[in-house]
Amino acid sequence: MRIDIISANPNITGSFLKYGLVSRAIKKGITEVYVHHLRDYADGKYRQIDDTPYGGGSGMILKPEPVFRCVEELKSKLEYDEVIYFSPQGIKLNQKAANYYSLKNNLILICGHYKGIDQRVINKLVTKEISIGDYVLSCGDIAAMVFTDAVLRLIPGVLGDGESAITDSFQVETGFDFPQYTRPEVYRKLKVPKVLLSGNHKEINNWREKKAISKYKKILKINKN
Amino acid sequence: MRIDIISANPNITGSFLKYGLVSRAIKKGITEVYVHHLRDYADGKYRQIDDTPYGGGSGMILKPEPVFRCVEELKSKLEYDEVIYFSPQGIKLNQKAANYYSLKNNLILICGHYKGIDQRVINKLVTKEISIGDYVLSCGDIAAMVFTDAVLRLIPGVLGDGESAITDSFQVETGFDFPQYTRPEVYRKLKVPKVLLSGNHKEINNWREKKAISKYKKILKINKN
Repeated sequence: MRIDIISANPNITGSFLKYGLVSRAIKKGITEVYVHHLRDYADGKYRQIDDTPYGGGSGMILKPEPVFRCVEELKSKLEYDEVIYFSPQGIKLNQKAANYYSLKNNLILICGHYKGIDQRVINKLVTKEISIGDYVLSCGDIAAMVFTDAVLRLIPGVLGDGESAITDSFQVETGFDFPQYTRPEVYRKLKVPKVLLSGNHKEINNWREKKAISKYKKILKINKN
Repeated sequence: MRIDIISANPNITGSFLKYGLVSRAIKKGITEVYVHHLRDYADGKYRQIDDTPYGGGSGMILKPEPVFRCVEELKSKLEYDEVIYFSPQGIKLNQKAANYYSLKNNLILICGHYKGIDQRVINKLVTKEISIGDYVLSCGDIAAMVFTDAVLRLIPGVLGDGESAITDSFQVETGFDFPQYTRPEVYRKLKVPKVLLSGNHKEINNWREKKAISKYKKILKINKN
């Protein structure tokens, strides 16, 4: 898979791409990730990438020209499955969607900033508008990191065997993980539940399922309120 | 506000903290953000921070001792409002919650990795378990970036006047922004809607409200399916 990120602030994702999961996927040759600076596609001495909104209002809007130029340059060299724009107005990202995108070959991610982007970009270039959650961020680059991580980790070979994504929460019925414990068995008088030390796998599985379901029900109730 | 991030992979958030919104907030003296490496609080020659799960299963679980030590060292010097752990099993982050946390003084954010963290940390140290969305990430550091950005940008002075968070989507009724346009007026035969050039503020507001509501209804329907 290849991911091209178009950004007004390309430095923000630097460490994310250099360390951890993404860098591992790049080193293994499973993925390529490129960040493109909008300013490199802007006009004039000042290479202006944003301007005030028509109709008034606060904030700056990303201009259409640099985005069109960058996307078209990319498309002239490669076929892309989707051109994604991140905004709170998009379709909600969930694990099912992450699975879907993990099967794609080439994706363009457009990161907004300030108050948004010229609507002509969304109408003409963007094939999917995605929201990572019901909150506002200072820039789309943060959403791009979430999306890239959630998607790349599902591609076979990116995670080690021991971390296989198949046993994730959300790949199971409730979408919830059970409580986990590791050594030491007793820490500050806090004990690991006896059942986990029993060696009885049927009992362990029952306990885990019960715990996952009870937490799921509790959180579902809170999130609905 | 002060934010202390406890991490097993502290490099990942480096660029995020150095560039953009957070660095601005730090430079303005509005916030302090510190990242603590779990390994600095671990035992032995190998400073092991994770181990296999009791009861079997794939993946590594963060051990309790380093987390307890780090949180307790922080708490010995300062009073914290909340100790937050990020997981898909948490209460969903939304704009209302971001507003709530933006009024706090000191927060500890614990970032998990691999298959999770020893449950004794959650039971004894964590005051809020938060989910940024219904998807799995490779580490909590990415969720910590989302949380930090969403919260800090709401603190007065962090954003410039022109970017005021008060006019955000989610602070308005539908929770949705209207389409935005900036120069040029015509780009590749694509025109800015006439109403936005009219100078008639009442008409502009009506158009924007109508557009926001119609998109809200459309996306709500998609997200429900």
